Amino acid sequence: MVMRVTSPLAHFHPFIPAGGVGSRLWPLSRADAPKFLLDLTGSGSSLLRATYDRLAGLSGGRVMVVTGRTHAPAVCRQLPELSPGDLVLEPSPKDSAAAIGLACMLIARQDPDAIVGSFAADHVIEPAEAFQDVVREAVAAAASGRIVTIGIPPSSPATGFGYIRAGSQLGLEGAPHALQVEQFVEKPDEATARAYVHSGNYTWNAGMFVAPASLMLRHLAASEPALHAGLAEIADAWGTPAQDEVVDRVWPGLPKTAIDYAVAEPAAAAGDVAMVPATFTWDDVGDFAAISRLNHVDPHGDPHVTVLGDNSRVLADSSTGIVVSDTGRMIALIGVEDIVVVDTPDALLVTTQEHAQRVKDAVASLKQSGNTDVL
Amino acid sequence: MVMRVTSPLAHFHPFIPAGGVGSRLWPLSRADAPKFLLDLTGSGSSLLRATYDRLAGLSGGRVMVVTGRTHAPAVCRQLPELSPGDLVLEPSPKDSAAAIGLACMLIARQDPDAIVGSFAADHVIEPAEAFQDVVREAVAAAASGRIVTIGIPPSSPATGFGYIRAGSQLGLEGAPHALQVEQFVEKPDEATARAYVHSGNYTWNAGMFVAPASLMLRHLAASEPALHAGLAEIADAWGTPAQDEVVDRVWPGLPKTAIDYAVAEPAAAAGDVAMVPATFTWDDVGDFAAISRLNHVDPHGDPHVTVLGDNSRVLADSSTGIVVSDTGRMIALIGVEDIVVVDTPDALLVTTQEHAQRVKDAVASLKQSGNTDVL
Repeated sequence: MVMRVTSPLAHFHPFIPAGGVGSRLWPLSRADAPKFLLDLTGSGSSLLRATYDRLAGLSGGRVMVVTGRTHAPAVCRQLPELSPGDLVLEPSPKDSAAAIGLACMLIARQDPDAIVGSFAADHVIEPAEAFQDVVREAVAAAASGRIVTIGIPPSSPATGFGYIRAGSQLGLEGAPHALQVEQFVEKPDEATARAYVHSGNYTWNAGMFVAPASLMLRHLAASEPALHAGLAEIADAWGTPAQDEVVDRVWPGLPKTAIDYAVAEPAAAAGDVAMVPATFTWDDVGDFAAISRLNHVDPHGDPHVTVLGDNSRVLADSSTGIVVSDTGRMIALIGVEDIVVVDTPDALLVTTQEHAQRVKDAVASLKQSGNTDVL
Repeated sequence: MVMRVTSPLAHFHPFIPAGGVGSRLWPLSRADAPKFLLDLTGSGSSLLRATYDRLAGLSGGRVMVVTGRTHAPAVCRQLPELSPGDLVLEPSPKDSAAAIGLACMLIARQDPDAIVGSFAADHVIEPAEAFQDVVREAVAAAASGRIVTIGIPPSSPATGFGYIRAGSQLGLEGAPHALQVEQFVEKPDEATARAYVHSGNYTWNAGMFVAPASLMLRHLAASEPALHAGLAEIADAWGTPAQDEVVDRVWPGLPKTAIDYAVAEPAAAAGDVAMVPATFTWDDVGDFAAISRLNHVDPHGDPHVTVLGDNSRVLADSSTGIVVSDTGRMIALIGVEDIVVVDTPDALLVTTQEHAQRVKDAVASLKQSGNTDVL
């Protein structure tokens, strides 16, 4: 006779911290139209919607979204099936430890054995099936009492990501590829990044992890007791008539810190972190060069101009690059290479794919010079 | 006792053939906003207005304008002092011989001894005083019974202009710099242009000339008798109740040809043409590179981005070139060099100063593809 034990997946509660404007994608991204609400792949759905769909298939449709209050209407439009109980609204941005900590606490109160999963709202992942296989493996590994991060095998010595140094195989049941994590390291310089990639022991840290909620909260309580206490006060009031009063009183005073410092790094030092390597393609769509890459329908053909948006009125003569526009204006490009043109009703960006990362600095300049109406 | 003779200037009747969209300046120039109606120098007045003002000072305010019917309202707005009799409207474009021939004929009927002057509406000339001195000399030379062109000493071996080959000094009274013109030559290739410039015998043909109206018409009658006859029929009816009927009947059938072929070249072959060299700076504002040149306030300073139009919301980071915009949109340029951005409510152009000449081809493509709403 075979005993059927409950699969760890039955306790899997994924959530999506949906924050961050993505200012490298200005003027497409705005304070009121952050990156996760945009369709950047021409698929017809936003990055948030695609993230939600990938996760809902693993959890029977149970996916929590943590986002800013101002984005609630747009999130509800994009995720009409989201139940009110799965939409957690932050009164103001408090960095990732507060958002993720609150999600863990609310989920742990529903299911003390919960295995949570945290997945950024604004990354592009293909195919969904490979992603789900990896997450299943991460859930199995997490059931052994570990925080399990999903590492991205590096395709280049990128300096824009943190890295994860992995050690030995863990040999966990249901998680044959899980490795011990020795250390999280911050964004390296290029020489260091090359050495990381060359060694074969490092993966990119994409900020995705799966873990028992209780383990997350134990580390949070140890490293950020004030944050943990504040979140606990909020979680106790959640769903009661006192909720709004408590949130508005407690939230503004919460410490602002990243989940990496509050949980991931101390947990790794304690030997509590594992890593499952990704077998899917992953892109954080960090700038317009990435958008061009993701939308290039004919990578082996002649270089050309990729057009994103509803604007078919683009005339390109001896030009390569990307045009993003849904203004309906005629756009003519003549003799410009690797160009990036982003055309919106109130703001226009012209740069090159090489300089696409610097859009963030331009947004900072606009903020400083008081041009906040276009931010 | 000194006899006072009438100065030739008393019979000077300048006119401005104002035609041509200037499609290399699209999307700034349009069918209903041709180049001559634009302010391309940031002076606050259109090229037409500036041309008119330069000439009015020589002729006591008597300047005729020949333009298309559709431009009449805009021309009247820009030249409120223009008397109705000095505004000659073409029902449709018929190339320069018809426009200039009609002007000569109408002026000759007012003053049989008229010395006409024809000056393009869309060139930039500085300073006005030097221009007026040269025109005075050309009028004096024309009084000797010649068609007198004003030659531009070439500053480069340009291949976009026709050239004038001059010969010996004529020693005319009041026109000490007038030379015999041996030949008009068409736009040369670059090697030929270099040889022309090197020889010192060639000037650019800017299409400006001063001549007795009667001499112009004699050459026109000889080389284009049908055109001459048609224009004569129109001129006979001008100012009578039959004018509109005659114009509408005769104009559509007139031969379409350039004044160069109809008059200038045969007149030069007959030895009837002289040239006075310009002592002013001249620019035909042929493309956006020229606009950048003309508006570059600090030619010895660091390269920067020149902004033309009422738009002060331009953020330029590590960029050089020109932005033309009065849409009020925020425009951010990052890491683009020698760029040309022309931002209008319904059309956007992004090119480089190097490729600015090719804008004309883009306009042709737009026409061919049926995008006439933005032309």
